[in-house]
Amino acid sequence: MTILIKNIQLDQQTTDIFIDGKFIKKVGKGLPDKAGKVIDGTGKAVMPGFINGHTHSAMTLFRGFGDDMPLEQWLNEKIWPYEKNLTGEDVYHGVRLACLEMIKTGTTCFNDMYMTYPAVLRAVEDMGLRATLGATIFDFFRPEVAAQFKRETEQNFAVPRSERISFALAPHAIYTVSGGTLQWVRDFAAANRLLIHLHLAETQTEYRNAVKDFGLSPVRYLHKLKLLSPHLVLAHCLYVDDEEIQLLADHDVKVVHNPNSNLKIGSGHAFRYSEMKAAGITVGIGTDGCGSSNNLDLLEAAKIAALLQKGWRCDPTVMPVGEALQCITGNGARILQVNAGKIAPGALADLCLIDLQSYAFTPDFHFASNLLYSASHGSCVDTVLCDGRILMENRRVPDEEAILENAARTARKLML
Amino acid sequence: MTILIKNIQLDQQTTDIFIDGKFIKKVGKGLPDKAGKVIDGTGKAVMPGFINGHTHSAMTLFRGFGDDMPLEQWLNEKIWPYEKNLTGEDVYHGVRLACLEMIKTGTTCFNDMYMTYPAVLRAVEDMGLRATLGATIFDFFRPEVAAQFKRETEQNFAVPRSERISFALAPHAIYTVSGGTLQWVRDFAAANRLLIHLHLAETQTEYRNAVKDFGLSPVRYLHKLKLLSPHLVLAHCLYVDDEEIQLLADHDVKVVHNPNSNLKIGSGHAFRYSEMKAAGITVGIGTDGCGSSNNLDLLEAAKIAALLQKGWRCDPTVMPVGEALQCITGNGARILQVNAGKIAPGALADLCLIDLQSYAFTPDFHFASNLLYSASHGSCVDTVLCDGRILMENRRVPDEEAILENAARTARKLML
Repeated sequence: MTILIKNIQLDQQTTDIFIDGKFIKKVGKGLPDKAGKVIDGTGKAVMPGFINGHTHSAMTLFRGFGDDMPLEQWLNEKIWPYEKNLTGEDVYHGVRLACLEMIKTGTTCFNDMYMTYPAVLRAVEDMGLRATLGATIFDFFRPEVAAQFKRETEQNFAVPRSERISFALAPHAIYTVSGGTLQWVRDFAAANRLLIHLHLAETQTEYRNAVKDFGLSPVRYLHKLKLLSPHLVLAHCLYVDDEEIQLLADHDVKVVHNPNSNLKIGSGHAFRYSEMKAAGITVGIGTDGCGSSNNLDLLEAAKIAALLQKGWRCDPTVMPVGEALQCITGNGARILQVNAGKIAPGALADLCLIDLQSYAFTPDFHFASNLLYSASHGSCVDTVLCDGRILMENRRVPDEEAILENAARTARKLML
Repeated sequence: MTILIKNIQLDQQTTDIFIDGKFIKKVGKGLPDKAGKVIDGTGKAVMPGFINGHTHSAMTLFRGFGDDMPLEQWLNEKIWPYEKNLTGEDVYHGVRLACLEMIKTGTTCFNDMYMTYPAVLRAVEDMGLRATLGATIFDFFRPEVAAQFKRETEQNFAVPRSERISFALAPHAIYTVSGGTLQWVRDFAAANRLLIHLHLAETQTEYRNAVKDFGLSPVRYLHKLKLLSPHLVLAHCLYVDDEEIQLLADHDVKVVHNPNSNLKIGSGHAFRYSEMKAAGITVGIGTDGCGSSNNLDLLEAAKIAALLQKGWRCDPTVMPVGEALQCITGNGARILQVNAGKIAPGALADLCLIDLQSYAFTPDFHFASNLLYSASHGSCVDTVLCDGRILMENRRVPDEEAILENAARTARKLML
């Protein structure tokens, strides 16, 4: 399959993009019209598909089910009693809704963490997105639970999957997974060249408890366990000091900032982006799951990340527009080790087309600024391609109504 | 003109709304179909039109023209050299673009501050929105400039306007307007029952300079000048102490929080919403102008306000969804003294209809949560009525293309 996108705006210039199979083959003006499919890019701009660095996609089922509550109460009353009843079929419908939302808002690749891995895998295969799917591991410091999760992990890893999808190990957090299991995860990941995806240093409570329970702060504890590596992706890292930032940088550990969920559940606001950037850490941005923050709109998360940095530092020059967009494109690709997040010959054809015919892009002094600060929401996305396939064209995704209906029915059945 | 909205969701119930002229006449199930126009509300929810507590609408012309720069450099290089060349015709096109954007995102009423009042007035009259239009007053502590602005203010006040529009006095700030002129503004406003709209305590610099120049903090300085009253609307108030909050509450002064602009230009993040609420102050939310923050999407501003409160306080229970939405509806109406911001017989027919057929409203556990935290952007708005007139139906606003084109041409002519 070949696709030609004609007369599309890229970096404020008009150009054409030729796609052959999964890859971008040529980018340039006046490419010949010979392609299986021609997309007219007039009045549109192209961006790399956005890359969501951290989410729990199935949790779309919990959207709006519990808000504005203390964390413990929310987990105890609104999440855990229902999450334990989730079947694979439920998760399948939740992930389909998540994929629909990501496609609608320009995300082509995401880093997931959830239970019931085979159902998540099936939904993402069906929906056509690229993903790193982390199968959650808990052991609650109980050897028999650890043994069960190790077996499950080996089984999940053995399930066949397409090239678009990577398997990852997702130990939940240092307060729910023992050091021994974390070391097993480390060795299993190394042996099979897999990413490790972990929540870390998300709250002050977690930080204090780590010092109390392990005698070390979260990052230092992981360092002691020899978990720090370029294949480790840490969600949050809201509570890290200068020395910890240096440790993360020294081991090329990747960090994913989730501004909306950090704010909404009251974890904190002062993510240390500038210090991490100065140390050379690759920082991505995630939406987190719809349980804690209620949508998967990565453009919105990037805007809030950029505004928050400027605000809490009282410095408008921090995280300028180009860096915020880099976090959800090129940095996301580097974190997930995929050949995407850029528009160049040889890169994967993961793209989104932005509709410029709106107030948000008027006047048109600076496309990137208009995208991040003015449009600031995925509703400006018109067309999405992933792996050289069109997932949305002119804002239409196949089966949208059925996906919404199935997810709504599943959520009602579970929670009401 | 009568309008009947049938089968619309209101507070999670299905109902009908009958509008006669400018007002909502009846709200209830099964109202008879006799109306000049019937709108099918199936699959939609109704909200009061949003009320933007602080903006500079003409500054849509500056959208994306200068971002991520230190405040002084931005003003000196990107705003003031161009603003001084703005003609009435330029401002007219900028305000029309702003009104288009507000209609598209569900705002039916706004509190404006800008120069060239007659042009602003003409654009808002044309576009059909409700507004309080504040004519900016500067004097830079020079008596001859003060005299000129007083003359202009009297002339502007005398320009005929429709009932939808109120004239307000908008002295820019305490560092650009002398105490004497502020007292003249106080007396002119009192004599003519007008609101006063002023930036106050926006930055730490402003606070420090007030103490240095006037021997008093900003709020105390206004108190000394006897400016504090229920008809005073203060934008920002980011730097106020407990005693100042009590002073504002004692005089029923209104406060408008502008989270996006406070963050983006690095003014700060710690707006004291909880303390103001406890003191009984009516707090609204504004977008500020598109120069400092780049869109006029009030739902987005309300989401960011709610998230920011929770984040900087590490408390997820602060500014729950109902309060955030109250800030952009009922509180906005109380601040601008208009009989809107609610859906009840006798209230002005300023409404927006929300399209529920999307991922953002799936599942449908909690409409308000889905609106604020999930949709979180005016793109969910489908139909808008103001003053009993339909300004947008099925996302179409008359003359949209011409408005965009005129504003784009005007901005290019001015800045390039």
